[in-house]
Parts: sequence; structure tokens; C-alpha cells
Amino acid sequence: MGEGAEIKALKAMEEIGKYIASARKVMDLKQVSEMMEMLVSTYQNSKKVLIVGAGRSGLVGKAFAMRLMHLGFKVYVLGETITPRVEEGDLVIAISGSGSTELVVATARIAKRLGAKIIAITSFPNSPLGKVADHVIYVPGRSKISKEKDYVIRQILGLHEPLAPLGTLFEDTAMAFLDGVVTGLMERLGKSEDEMLKMHANVELP
Amino acid sequence: MGEGAEIKALKAMEEIGKYIASARKVMDLKQVSEMMEMLVSTYQNSKKVLIVGAGRSGLVGKAFAMRLMHLGFKVYVLGETITPRVEEGDLVIAISGSGSTELVVATARIAKRLGAKIIAITSFPNSPLGKVADHVIYVPGRSKISKEKDYVIRQILGLHEPLAPLGTLFEDTAMAFLDGVVTGLMERLGKSEDEMLKMHANVELP
Amino acid sequence: MGEGAEIKALKAMEEIGKYIASARKVMDLKQVSEMMEMLVSTYQNSKKVLIVGAGRSGLVGKAFAMRLMHLGFKVYVLGETITPRVEEGDLVIAISGSGSTELVVATARIAKRLGAKIIAITSFPNSPLGKVADHVIYVPGRSKISKEKDYVIRQILGLHEPLAPLGTLFEDTAMAFLDGVVTGLMERLGKSEDEMLKMHANVELP
Amino acid sequence: MGEGAEIKALKAMEEIGKYIASARKVMDLKQVSEMMEMLVSTYQNSKKVLIVGAGRSGLVGKAFAMRLMHLGFKVYVLGETITPRVEEGDLVIAISGSGSTELVVATARIAKRLGAKIIAITSFPNSPLGKVADHVIYVPGRSKISKEKDYVIRQILGLHEPLAPLGTLFEDTAMAFLDGVVTGLMERLGKSEDEMLKMHANVELP
Repeated sequence: MGEGAEIKALKAMEEIGKYIASARKVMDLKQVSEMMEMLVSTYQNSKKVLIVGAGRSGLVGKAFAMRLMHLGFKVYVLGETITPRVEEGDLVIAISGSGSTELVVATARIAKRLGAKIIAITSFPNSPLGKVADHVIYVPGRSKISKEKDYVIRQILGLHEPLAPLGTLFEDTAMAFLDGVVTGLMERLGKSEDEMLKMHANVELP
Repeated sequence: MGEGAEIKALKAMEEIGKYIASARKVMDLKQVSEMMEMLVSTYQNSKKVLIVGAGRSGLVGKAFAMRLMHLGFKVYVLGETITPRVEEGDLVIAISGSGSTELVVATARIAKRLGAKIIAITSFPNSPLGKVADHVIYVPGRSKISKEKDYVIRQILGLHEPLAPLGTLFEDTAMAFLDGVVTGLMERLGKSEDEMLKMHANVELP
Repeated sequence: MGEGAEIKALKAMEEIGKYIASARKVMDLKQVSEMMEMLVSTYQNSKKVLIVGAGRSGLVGKAFAMRLMHLGFKVYVLGETITPRVEEGDLVIAISGSGSTELVVATARIAKRLGAKIIAITSFPNSPLGKVADHVIYVPGRSKISKEKDYVIRQILGLHEPLAPLGTLFEDTAMAFLDGVVTGLMERLGKSEDEMLKMHANVELP
Repeated sequence: MGEGAEIKALKAMEEIGKYIASARKVMDLKQVSEMMEMLVSTYQNSKKVLIVGAGRSGLVGKAFAMRLMHLGFKVYVLGETITPRVEEGDLVIAISGSGSTELVVATARIAKRLGAKIIAITSFPNSPLGKVADHVIYVPGRSKISKEKDYVIRQILGLHEPLAPLGTLFEDTAMAFLDGVVTGLMERLGKSEDEMLKMHANVELP
């Protein structure tokens, strides 16, 4: 084993954790408040939440979808077997660090045309996805396509070393942020962990 | 909007980040070193890595699989369309916070019988999965099935408030840990971010 | 191009079609009637249908799940992101040509323990899956694991040439059979094609 | 049970089988020959086959992908976890009954721009997908979006009764056709069923 690679691994994990913990400083409380309002309203009106994202961002979206299901939301992942039609009043949450993933942007446009509201989770509010969206949540992160802008973000956070390749920082921060939203929604909707556990799948397949 | 739910959301994100940053203190450097050795050896012998996990742990595994692909590994996710057979010398990475997810354990057993080595990523080294595995990586986290043991772990880390429901802490920490392993492997295998970008999918579907 | 390989391809398609058309002769009308009764009852009691199958049989199950959704069923595919818990009164449809796919059988057992009724779609009613099931539908087909029994089935149908490898005949026949069940359910539940079209996804992702 | 719904189910299965068996009459041998040539050439040059399709057509594509894997092809499904980049010389097989599924067409366009050859499997050669493709295979079927044209096709085949809703006839015929192609490829590449079985996954997950 190359001396120290395992130390580098744990150090990178630590730095990712610190990055996530610092993200709050550069995020916008009002953006988050508005996102939660849109989610609660979707829940109360029995409308659907539809998740869309490609690659690792899509996986982060699916992890969020599972928790929304545990909270009692009608939630679906675009592209899976059982995904009903998009209708007026539905809420689409589109996740893309760069905001430029071509088919995610195309999907958001189609969903908007069908009457859904779009929330974009992205590091680049001025990206094509940001422009299509009704509401944008800025989540910091490097993006594999925009090295210069990364620099600015990383300077703000005081992170000087590249410690995680490609979109990792965005993806991991988005994962923790959306898990934070779940905690906020538990409070807002008065849901306990036990109630969520009752909604948890009891046949879990690999 | 319930006053403060958005503050709670960002605070929970922050606490998740701190939890991840602290995880290193309770993790075992030798376990990580051995896991990286097994991965490097699999890579050098052109054997396959197969990922298995259910629910949100499965999604964390898929995110890791994508990065291993970017690093040039022969990697597959059990249960997807294109997953070849398990053979002698392959490496299975099984992810389960509780270590008790019935079908993940069953899958690990079958893979072991077929000659693969098993690494378990779990909060419970003495769980059924931990016992099947050839090598265990302890990753801290609460588990939805073992509240008492959680308490001990969370005391160690000085995290007194429940801030994230069910398996969230394990899942988010495992995500960051495996991303740390990717950083370590870049060093160990001499791979640059640009080389990884060249392996990145160029048609990303939601 | 090897002379005639394209002719062989179209001929194999034709023979698969004939095999499917002949399958009715060896299938049991009462088994089908009972399956439809169980589906209608699940629909009328607002219980869930859960589909389970591995490999190509799993894909056939997903294709059936989509149509059940178009008919208004509460239907899910075990193993996907949004799959709620199995509960008393739910109906599990497990598809396996051999009836021996280890993890499908394990899943059926768990679901039964949780109070669901199990329907097995299989070529081998005496297989482990057939024995776990509350109700079995025999669908003819060769099975990759049981060449002798295939012989008998194929003799019955008068199909003497091997024309499709491995589980193909079972899978294609099961696909057409389940599509036949959809046609039967349209009649039984008084659903028109236009009503189904209204339930069809309007954002279809590759 | 509504009297006769189970009879209707088996009769619909029978008619689907007959439809598939008749499809050969309206299909073009030269189109099939050219498709097989393109597949063999991709195989011999160690290039990749990438499958794309939405909804039930996507499932048919995955079933074909599994068999190509058993034949030794480098094959991937666009949108899954482990899908490498599209490169010059790769072959994309896009499946859409209507040829108009928006995101399938968009994906085919992107892949073509990246240097892949595109084969469209469709009932409508003049559709947007048909026009993007380098090569088109006409497979008969009704399409949920084009009732008039269906009529013509069904008259040709002498099928006067609607027996299967929406895209069913296309999907089931495409499934059997692609399985026929597999049989043709076995002949062309000199692969036995036993060789394919050796490539079959040995850990099959639901």
C-alpha cells in the first residue's frame, strides 16, 4: 500500500464533513424557507413530488425521495417503472451541480410545460436549469465543468486543497442538505421518527 | 411556514457535516488500509468489484461504483441489467448500517460461496453481515433497528441531539467515507482528476 | 454476413410467436381465473400489488406493473426507490421460469410472513417458489436449469427445434400472458384504452 | 369474476402470439440483415452497444442487453449506474414504437453527435427517431399516439379486433424480434447455448 493513502482517505472524509458543515454560511435561508413552503403546500394539497437528476446527483435525489415517502409524501422518481404523469400543481425537484446536464434541463422544461413547479438544486443559479426553475436553491460545490467559478466558492469557504474529484463536494453537500430538509419537515409536519419507521419498506432488496 | 423549520434544516445539515468530520476519530486506520489494499489488488489483477446494498445504502454504493468506474475499475452493481457473474477473486462491497438487511446478507453469502471476498461497510461489526464478511469497515451511525447501541456511539462523538432520522447518519458518513477512499485511490493509483473526467459518462440520463 | 442469419432471426421470431399462440393449450383456465379474481379483489380493497422477479423475468414483471398502473392499481416493484412496506392483504406476483431463483424465493417467503398473498408465475409448479406461493400460474417455457423437463413441454407443444436460448420462451410467453391478463382486466373492471392512456406517464425517460 | 374475463385473457395472449408470428410478413429482411451486420462489426471491433428506450420499450431493450452480454458483447443501458461514455464507433439501439418519445430522440441525437451509429427500432420510420437514425428497423405495432396509421398496419396483418392496449403489440413484437436476432447472432458468431449460460449472472437479484 502506498504509504499514507489510507490517511489521505480519512482526511478527505474529514474535509468533506467540514465543507458540509461550512456550507450553511454561503447558503440562503430564504431560499430554503421557500423550498420548504413549496414542499409543505404540495403535501397538504395531496399533489405529487417528482425527483429528477442524472448520475450521482440522481442517486442523491433518490435518497431524498425515500425519506419524503417515509414522511407520507406522494413522491416519485422520474424514469422508474412506477412514475405517474406530471400534472398541474405537482412539484419537480431537479438536482444538478452544474445546472447544465442536458437531459435534466430538457426534463425540467417538459415538466414545466405540463404545469409543474420546478425547484433547482444547483451550484450555478444562472445555469440553464436555474433559468428554467421557478425556485433555485444554491448548494456550494465544485462542478466538473466550471473550474474557475469553483475557485471563488472554495475561497469563500476557505478550502484551498482539492480533496474530492469532480462533482463530489456538490453531491455530498446536497445529500446532507436534503437530509436537513427532512429534519425540518419532521418539525414542520409534526412527524416523529417512529411514524417514519412505520412507513419504511420492510422488504429491502439490494 | 412553522417558524424556524428552515433554520432547523440548515442546522441539521451542519450537524451532519460535523458528525462526518468527527467520524475519523472512531474509525480504524488499519481497517481502511486493508480495504484499500484489497481494492488495489482487485484492480491490478483485473478482477471485478461488485456493489451490493439496499435502500439508501444501496444508493451510496452506486455513487461509489460510479467513481470506481471513473478510476478504471471493472465495477458492477448487483441487480442492474448488466451485471456479469461473480467469480473467484472478485471483490464484493456490501453496505448496511445495521448489518442485518436480510437480502443483503443472503447476497453476500451467495457471493462468498462463489469465491468472492466480501467487505462489509457497517455500524455493527458483530451483525450477520459483519460475520459473513472477510473484512469489516466500521462506519459510525445510528441504525434504525438498534437504538441502544446508537446511544453509545453518539455519546462517543458528543452528539446529544437527535438530528437526522433512521439510518441517515450512517448513510451520509458512508457516502463521505467512500468518497474519501476515492481520493486515496487516486493517490495510490496515480490517477488525476482529468483522467477520471475522461472516463465520465457523456450521455447522462435522469 | 453469414448467409441466412437474418432469415434465422425472423424465423426464430415467428416460432416464438407460434409458441406463445400455442401456450393456451397447456395452460389452465381455472388458474388464470383465480389469479384475476385475486387481482380484482386487491384492486377493490385498495390493497397493493408488488412485483418481484430477477433478470429478464423481472423486466417482464415491470412491464406488467406499468399496465397495472394504467388500470388504476396501487402497484410497486420490489427493489425500486419508491416501494412502500408489504402489508396484510397485499398481493405479491413473483415471476421465475425455473421457480428456483434463490433471492426471488427468499423475497416471496419474507412477503408471505408479512401477510401478503403470493402468486407464482413459473414453468415449474413444484419448484421452491411454487411451494411458497398461495397460487401458481403455469406458463410453459424451457428453463435454463432443467433441460429434461423442457423436453416434455416442448414435445407437448410440438416444438422440436431449439430456437431461443435459455429462458427466452418462458419470458416471452409470460410477457404476452400478462398482457392478456391486462386485456381481461380491462373487460372485468370496465376500463377503456382512453382511460388507460390518461394514466400513462407523460414524461418518459430513457 | 366477470364471466369470460379469463377466457379473454388467454385469447388475447393467443392473438398476440399470432400477431408476432405474422410480423415477419411485413418486416424487411434487408433491414434485419444490415442490423445484424452492424452488430457483428461492433462485436468484432470491440466497440460498445448502448441501449436506449423509455417505459416498456426500455424494458424490452434491457432484456435484449442481457442476451447481448451472454453473447460476449460489450453492452450497456443508458441511464444505469455503470454506463461508460459514448465513443466514435459505438452502436446505439434506440427503441420507440411511436419514434416520438421526446427524450429518447434527444438521447439519440446526443449520441450521434458523439460519433455513435444509431439503429432505430420503431413502427414509424418517418418519425423523429427514424430520421435521426443511421438505420431503421420497422417493427409493426399500434402506437398509442397514431391510431390512423395503426389501422393500416393492422389491416395488412388481418387483425381486426383491438386485443391489446396502447403500445403492447409493438413492445411484445419487438421483444420477440430482438430474441430472434439473438438466435441469428448465435449462428453468426458460432456461440452455443452453453457458452451463453457461462456468461449468465449467477447472483440474480429481484
